[in-house]
Amino acid sequence: MVMAMILFNYKAYPEAIGKGALRLSRYLDEIGEEFGVKISVSPQYLDIPTIIRETRNLEVFSQHVDPVKGAYTGSVSPLSLKEAGVSGSLLNHSERKLKISSIKEGVLTLKDLGLTSIVCAEDELIASMISKLSPDFIAVEPPELIGTGISVSKAKPELLERTLQLKEFKIRILCGAGISSGEDVERAMEIGMDGVLVSSSFVKSKNPKEKALELIEAYSKFI
Amino acid sequence: MVMAMILFNYKAYPEAIGKGALRLSRYLDEIGEEFGVKISVSPQYLDIPTIIRETRNLEVFSQHVDPVKGAYTGSVSPLSLKEAGVSGSLLNHSERKLKISSIKEGVLTLKDLGLTSIVCAEDELIASMISKLSPDFIAVEPPELIGTGISVSKAKPELLERTLQLKEFKIRILCGAGISSGEDVERAMEIGMDGVLVSSSFVKSKNPKEKALELIEAYSKFI
Amino acid sequence: MVMAMILFNYKAYPEAIGKGALRLSRYLDEIGEEFGVKISVSPQYLDIPTIIRETRNLEVFSQHVDPVKGAYTGSVSPLSLKEAGVSGSLLNHSERKLKISSIKEGVLTLKDLGLTSIVCAEDELIASMISKLSPDFIAVEPPELIGTGISVSKAKPELLERTLQLKEFKIRILCGAGISSGEDVERAMEIGMDGVLVSSSFVKSKNPKEKALELIEAYSKFI
Amino acid sequence: MVMAMILFNYKAYPEAIGKGALRLSRYLDEIGEEFGVKISVSPQYLDIPTIIRETRNLEVFSQHVDPVKGAYTGSVSPLSLKEAGVSGSLLNHSERKLKISSIKEGVLTLKDLGLTSIVCAEDELIASMISKLSPDFIAVEPPELIGTGISVSKAKPELLERTLQLKEFKIRILCGAGISSGEDVERAMEIGMDGVLVSSSFVKSKNPKEKALELIEAYSKFI
Repeated sequence: MVMAMILFNYKAYPEAIGKGALRLSRYLDEIGEEFGVKISVSPQYLDIPTIIRETRNLEVFSQHVDPVKGAYTGSVSPLSLKEAGVSGSLLNHSERKLKISSIKEGVLTLKDLGLTSIVCAEDELIASMISKLSPDFIAVEPPELIGTGISVSKAKPELLERTLQLKEFKIRILCGAGISSGEDVERAMEIGMDGVLVSSSFVKSKNPKEKALELIEAYSKFI
Repeated sequence: MVMAMILFNYKAYPEAIGKGALRLSRYLDEIGEEFGVKISVSPQYLDIPTIIRETRNLEVFSQHVDPVKGAYTGSVSPLSLKEAGVSGSLLNHSERKLKISSIKEGVLTLKDLGLTSIVCAEDELIASMISKLSPDFIAVEPPELIGTGISVSKAKPELLERTLQLKEFKIRILCGAGISSGEDVERAMEIGMDGVLVSSSFVKSKNPKEKALELIEAYSKFI
Repeated sequence: MVMAMILFNYKAYPEAIGKGALRLSRYLDEIGEEFGVKISVSPQYLDIPTIIRETRNLEVFSQHVDPVKGAYTGSVSPLSLKEAGVSGSLLNHSERKLKISSIKEGVLTLKDLGLTSIVCAEDELIASMISKLSPDFIAVEPPELIGTGISVSKAKPELLERTLQLKEFKIRILCGAGISSGEDVERAMEIGMDGVLVSSSFVKSKNPKEKALELIEAYSKFI
Repeated sequence: MVMAMILFNYKAYPEAIGKGALRLSRYLDEIGEEFGVKISVSPQYLDIPTIIRETRNLEVFSQHVDPVKGAYTGSVSPLSLKEAGVSGSLLNHSERKLKISSIKEGVLTLKDLGLTSIVCAEDELIASMISKLSPDFIAVEPPELIGTGISVSKAKPELLERTLQLKEFKIRILCGAGISSGEDVERAMEIGMDGVLVSSSFVKSKNPKEKALELIEAYSKFI
């Protein structure tokens, strides 16, 4: 069972698609080994199988899943995640908000398949609603900070602290939005987070390898 | 440039995911070679790379694409299709209906990337709207016949005939919904269709290999 | 503060639009007065002002609200409900499912305006999620029973009983789906519900006045 | 049959809801009479009946309509527009984008009821798609100019000119986005538009009466 997590979300950034996705994933794979920590990534769907095959230690997540099967053209089938060797999936990212019934079905379906669920919440009230589903992780991400470089752990520590009570239900809490330095990671972990989500600060970095090193080194101190 | 097409849409059928997807694709690959025709498939996103790698002659399509790049968690990036070696994508399937602006953006983005667009239309009026975008293919699929086994080529030949005028704009016309026998395929081709979409009659067949043989043999007579 | 409720939801039934809406509302208004109970209705948006003006004792609810203001063409503004004298709104009906963030915003906005919120939930798990928002009412409606004439109070009494624990958070619980007789209403109230939602069994009745009488009489015994 | 149109879209602006909606509508009603031109408005749904009753010469439009009837809680029924005495409806505003099939159904349903359809298009390609439905009006509104005060008639005259060819199909062409002065209106009409859509420049004006006077006076010169 995954207890903590640093998740690199590739979103649909051109730098992190196809060959770029593989190159970035190899950096993360190596650096993770170097520091002895598990690194998680969520690439584009079509890049998932290659990354799984071509890396050794990464946990690969889907960016989204549709809890359906059968005549649903265009959906992301949960079973296809399982068969491909994916570790689990994000759900309800603020860039892919879901109906409440789809979040429920999504978490239950991932559980049934033995996959890890990471449900995003924009604030503590939504986090508390989602906690009723007992997902593996809740990722608190204030949408107004995403992509800003202003980290949630610096700008909204009290929001993060208030979500920590959900740990009593054995849900682990991640945070994301604006995490862009080793210091941001350390603050998040010091507050009590079980890990962080990182995206543009890594993917769009001029030197992603160096940036990954900085973020993972900070993270590794707490694992 | 693809001139005609028989497309096997795997949707989210459990029989056509993971190992099942690979097995079905190998049948199609072999039978296509046998009859000297190109076969197209649209599997789950995560099965696409393996099918491309493990088959020789299939054209692999995406079931959907989101015309976006950047901070769009959960999207299907057009660039990821291109990088994976996909031939193109379905758009606006009746099980994944799109806003008019997304159809426009989708077709234009696929064109820019040199990928083939197949836009679904539930009737001739919507087909005529879509024709203004000059996609490569329009697939006419009356949603009420999908999955019924009652083929559009038998039940609605006049609908298909009326869409043939769109060929003057160099758009090729496919039909789908209920195509379940070689005879259905022949009728469609005789009417003047440039090909057919097939799904449950193949995927959920007790003997998919035999069913593929029947459908592809009928199709091959017109190519 | 409304403590119990029998809500007649007109949906988009032609029988309950325009003059039909007014006629049905007058029946309910009279019968409510006769039995000394408050009756609630949720008509089409455009029928709301006339019903408010032309009836005496009805509580009028919106079928939906969008928690937005400003440049949102096509939305149902919460402020417009308030100004029109509406009592509150349904949210997340299974025929108009909402994203989790819209449910949260919707409940908070209604509270701010002093309007009553009735949030629909298809099962007890979703009801428990919604309870974290402390809406005034949660309406449990298994979608598979809606419009069937098989009442939730007869078919799923244990589902209703399990939601009663939410009352400790001062949330009142309604049920709906298939409520079509006085007996259905009585069962629901006996189980401990704070009221019921009724729709097609009234709106599409050959004799809606008589049907209303039957349902309201049963309800009035518990008020 | 309406041949030209100046439409004041109230959206969900607090200034144009409830009593504000009525006050603004009375200004427009008076100024329209003064200049002898028909003025159109699209208020919040719940304000429509009062505005129709309390003004003399306004054409009142809905901001959106759902082409459905029956069990569709939360929808805006076309029949409810007809019964309320509404003149027609906007469809596919860039703030309420629709699936292509909903646009088709919407236009056809409005036609069936004898109501006027105004379908919004963000560019000429989408306008040409929509023209296949023969709506009464197409309103060209580049979304990037909405609310900016930079008028489409000044910033993109060539876009407007290119849409004029659709007039040969007896569709009348409106434009909107950034129309904020009499001069903007005049330019639009000089290019050949059949009218304009106005919103924030009127609704949020410090002196809406004066602003309406300026815009309507400019418009009236062409009618």
